Amino acid sequence: MLLDGINKPEDLKELTIDQLEQLAEEIRSFLIQKLSVTGGHLAPNLGVVELTLVMHYLFHSPHDKFIFDVGHQSYVHKILTGRKDQFDTLRMYKGLCGFVKRSESPHDVWEAGHSSTSLSAAMGMALARDFKGDTNRVVAVIGDGALTGGMALEALNHIGHEKRNMIVVLNDNEMSIAPNVGALHHYLGKIRTDRHYQKAKDDLQHLLNKIPAIGGKLAKTAERFKDSLKYLLVSGILFEQFGLTYLGPVDGHDIEGLIDIMKQADSMPGPVLVHVITVKGKGYTPAERDSHAWHGASPYKIESGQMVKAVGPPMYTKVFGDILIELAEKDERIVAVTPAMPGGSGLLEFAARFPHRMLDVGIAEQHAATMSAALALEGLKPVYAVYSTFLQRAYDQVVHDICRQNLNVVFAIDRAGFVGPDGETHQGVYDIAYLRHIPNLVLMMPKDENELRRMMVTSLQYNDGPIAVRYPRIHGVGVELEKDPQPIPIGSWETLREGDAYVILAVGPMISVAEDAAEALKREGVNVGIVNARFIKPLDEAMLVSLAESGKRIIVLEEGSQLGGLGSAVLEFYSLKGIYNTAVRIIGIPDFFVEHGSIQQQRTEVGLTGERVASEIRGMLPRVIKRVTGQV
Amino acid sequence: MLLDGINKPEDLKELTIDQLEQLAEEIRSFLIQKLSVTGGHLAPNLGVVELTLVMHYLFHSPHDKFIFDVGHQSYVHKILTGRKDQFDTLRMYKGLCGFVKRSESPHDVWEAGHSSTSLSAAMGMALARDFKGDTNRVVAVIGDGALTGGMALEALNHIGHEKRNMIVVLNDNEMSIAPNVGALHHYLGKIRTDRHYQKAKDDLQHLLNKIPAIGGKLAKTAERFKDSLKYLLVSGILFEQFGLTYLGPVDGHDIEGLIDIMKQADSMPGPVLVHVITVKGKGYTPAERDSHAWHGASPYKIESGQMVKAVGPPMYTKVFGDILIELAEKDERIVAVTPAMPGGSGLLEFAARFPHRMLDVGIAEQHAATMSAALALEGLKPVYAVYSTFLQRAYDQVVHDICRQNLNVVFAIDRAGFVGPDGETHQGVYDIAYLRHIPNLVLMMPKDENELRRMMVTSLQYNDGPIAVRYPRIHGVGVELEKDPQPIPIGSWETLREGDAYVILAVGPMISVAEDAAEALKREGVNVGIVNARFIKPLDEAMLVSLAESGKRIIVLEEGSQLGGLGSAVLEFYSLKGIYNTAVRIIGIPDFFVEHGSIQQQRTEVGLTGERVASEIRGMLPRVIKRVTGQV
Repeated sequence: MLLDGINKPEDLKELTIDQLEQLAEEIRSFLIQKLSVTGGHLAPNLGVVELTLVMHYLFHSPHDKFIFDVGHQSYVHKILTGRKDQFDTLRMYKGLCGFVKRSESPHDVWEAGHSSTSLSAAMGMALARDFKGDTNRVVAVIGDGALTGGMALEALNHIGHEKRNMIVVLNDNEMSIAPNVGALHHYLGKIRTDRHYQKAKDDLQHLLNKIPAIGGKLAKTAERFKDSLKYLLVSGILFEQFGLTYLGPVDGHDIEGLIDIMKQADSMPGPVLVHVITVKGKGYTPAERDSHAWHGASPYKIESGQMVKAVGPPMYTKVFGDILIELAEKDERIVAVTPAMPGGSGLLEFAARFPHRMLDVGIAEQHAATMSAALALEGLKPVYAVYSTFLQRAYDQVVHDICRQNLNVVFAIDRAGFVGPDGETHQGVYDIAYLRHIPNLVLMMPKDENELRRMMVTSLQYNDGPIAVRYPRIHGVGVELEKDPQPIPIGSWETLREGDAYVILAVGPMISVAEDAAEALKREGVNVGIVNARFIKPLDEAMLVSLAESGKRIIVLEEGSQLGGLGSAVLEFYSLKGIYNTAVRIIGIPDFFVEHGSIQQQRTEVGLTGERVASEIRGMLPRVIKRVTGQV
Repeated sequence: MLLDGINKPEDLKELTIDQLEQLAEEIRSFLIQKLSVTGGHLAPNLGVVELTLVMHYLFHSPHDKFIFDVGHQSYVHKILTGRKDQFDTLRMYKGLCGFVKRSESPHDVWEAGHSSTSLSAAMGMALARDFKGDTNRVVAVIGDGALTGGMALEALNHIGHEKRNMIVVLNDNEMSIAPNVGALHHYLGKIRTDRHYQKAKDDLQHLLNKIPAIGGKLAKTAERFKDSLKYLLVSGILFEQFGLTYLGPVDGHDIEGLIDIMKQADSMPGPVLVHVITVKGKGYTPAERDSHAWHGASPYKIESGQMVKAVGPPMYTKVFGDILIELAEKDERIVAVTPAMPGGSGLLEFAARFPHRMLDVGIAEQHAATMSAALALEGLKPVYAVYSTFLQRAYDQVVHDICRQNLNVVFAIDRAGFVGPDGETHQGVYDIAYLRHIPNLVLMMPKDENELRRMMVTSLQYNDGPIAVRYPRIHGVGVELEKDPQPIPIGSWETLREGDAYVILAVGPMISVAEDAAEALKREGVNVGIVNARFIKPLDEAMLVSLAESGKRIIVLEEGSQLGGLGSAVLEFYSLKGIYNTAVRIIGIPDFFVEHGSIQQQRTEVGLTGERVASEIRGMLPRVIKRVTGQV
């Protein structure tokens, strides 16, 4: 095994091309083997084995800066930089991170998780290098999907202006045309020379349709959303017009070809874009066949390509997708909007059922939000399905376009709360804090599958402005689904358990944590009440006043930032009402970023467990404040 | 006067070209006259007189949807849709809004204020139209600057894919080449036919350099940031590659030419881009000469073009710009980053002094943030100067790229608090709420010019992560500037006034409101203390504990959302410390969007005046809560 001797990039330098090719195969086997146990981003990493090898073979990390967009395709980079022995802990608590992580290695120079940031990072690093008079290379690797993100285009515009030395590797893995790259290469080379683009574009399509093995696939691809951009990419003109030198396309699995083109890129002044065609899942047939399913894989059986399916009640994501179909059947104004996440958001079935009512806009959270605003303005019922962490990117559009105009956009906010192995870049723990202060917005979280269904009904009947349902990345609690879900009165909470002196306000999965705490305390003779605070905004003001009047001590439990969350909402309410003597204790996520692990480990780390909550309640005697001048 | 008879778009329909031309001149005079008294966005509106006339002459608003990007160029539209008599109240409290405003007229179909949203809006409206089987036109008007915003490019990508009928008017007003549009038109038409773009681009530059009157100006323009994009625009190829039909360029002040091209655009299926070259400030010499200064004008003398200068101490914006220069002289790691707001952010002098350390990235708040992260990572000291309301657009980048990586980016957040006549789209009243919950960030606000200077010193010496200074769009308080500003210990508040039972916590301009309240109450024998809570995060915990121990009642005064602000921070602190018996009253901006007016009127509307605060304190007896089951 060559791989055994590779512990740092320098170990690659003396290898022959043949040895690099052998090493590529060994790395593939290693990845397929290791990820079959841990799961992880298999397909993207299989696609960049040769590319990453060549980068480390030719250049000198960490002096040269390698920036991986999103960062989930950095496994090969991790293998080559001394971390191959840690892959048994991939994406586990305190284990190897699934993204680039600066604390793991000096070779990890830029962290991400969200898409489309790499070009801005490269621009900053190139500028800083030149300010300091350094000479290091800056190499960014960005996928074709990430390039639809607005900030990547903003950066491209600036890169073309500044003309600093850098290499942008466009990792184009959508076309899956590896066997024919040679012909395409030739053809596209001709396009670049002739610059008769429009004709060339038509000819290209014609040519591709004639190639039986790939024609169908490409024709299908050609219908897809990203096409207009795609053609810009394959012709290279976009980049050249933006001021970058365009090289390629090159077969991303041809080590010699990659070495040649990267050397060429390295010899040229200014920003150079190297267009590399890769196959997602390359070398593992099941992943090549369905690179979407294998983008982020669960553990699997290598031989059969069978992934381990989680057992249990349906995920909230699926419950959402199902009820949306039910509602869309009865109301043709309903359309679904997704920023490139139809699968992750549970909308594949909706898309199959209502293809014309499914608006996938690419990785474009901002556009998705503002377009939804306009759809609502014109009387449609847009349901913008988006992960909590990605909605961060549309914060301004939510404020300025949707809420300020008070439009009937429905937000289906998935992955709210801890998300587990994706870790800190993907935690959905800020949405309450960044949404709650925006006027006009209603914000809900369901306690179970039926309540999610009812909240979707509520949302789609609501006509007074924007309304959002957030739900976690976990299985439902397993209740039997009600046939005809009824709307819930806006701002109404629900008492789940009567208690004496203490009451826990909780939403979503925190309700079961509250139950655990209440059970533990009950055994000690303390009866703690539980309220399902399903409306995070507006609050159930009548219930809050009544709790204050009854002299309860209140504990607010939340799987979200303890700054600016539901607990703060309760505190603000009492303050604004002039109710100053009600004890409210917040138990939420403290003020730091919580890293990868299982959701349960993440909860335990921050104290969101029944045991810890019970203990907090036991200790919740008011702190004795010594009054120095008690004249109030 | 033809204008006297124009009260709705229908009144235009029977006019001859000559009459439309006369009307254009009358509208220009009207705007120059009215805005000399009220101030407002003169130059942009003078640039679109003919364009707006032609849109209303040919099409049928509001059945046809006109979408103005940003919306500050909608004055002509307002004049033509029955609002010309309201221009005496332009941008005044309860008066005519300076942007598109749906509540003003059915002809105002889409509101904005922030840049680059119009294409997403147009996409949504076109989709909705087709869903409903309607046939109305959708016409978006977007400037060349707005097109550098990432979300506009996201939308363009989607528009090109969907191929719905719409007209996108590119209002290109940077090149100022009106007299030569004919020649250019011819030349560019040739470019479009030949498609030998690279050569054409070089030839074009060559040609332009030969035209003495405009060559110099263009050559200078050619050095400017937006050039790579500009060339895409003039050649039209960007749009054609994105799937839009490109028409133009056309002289935006030639009514006949505009009518022809708009008719042509209207007759074509799918999205059509009409490239219109306009002159900002057209018809008013001072504004044509310096369209930047006349973008948003103060009241002025028509004859001399002399704007009324506000008298008083320097604006905080200037204090910031000056101290940054002082600090940059001593520390060459300091660079300034701006998303197209060098003037508004007080950085013109910095740019002149340190041209290579001034990074203007265009309207690209996201890229600016993430690029700053990379600059900091590499050891520079980026100062990202940005308006509070525009930083909203980089929320995700602040969380994910800057704070999560804990990088030493300095934020200079201008226009924090009420902004006056720009109104609800521009209020800087959410930054505390959207920043405070992000781990690792320090957030400050100064009480006067010297404290701003000290905070900038503090920020640039700070090496433990991101740090932000927010300051208002007002004049300083007029203190004499200290020569050698010293850093302020992180998290330290300052007692400004000793009191008895009550203490007001305030920041920035709210301190003078607190003083007013305290003076009023002092006359009644009540001594209210005042604390300058200059660190919004971290809080001065020792002081808060001490205030609780001394049994004070606390009033938090803030010119920001009362949800999620400084008051909430104080409440959370006591809650987390288990201090439940300290009365904290928040007086901030209630949960609605505050419209245009003077800053003083906006404060009065929400109760942020000395009088109201005094009255709140008088009434701040704890609400008597009837204990039903008082067993705690």
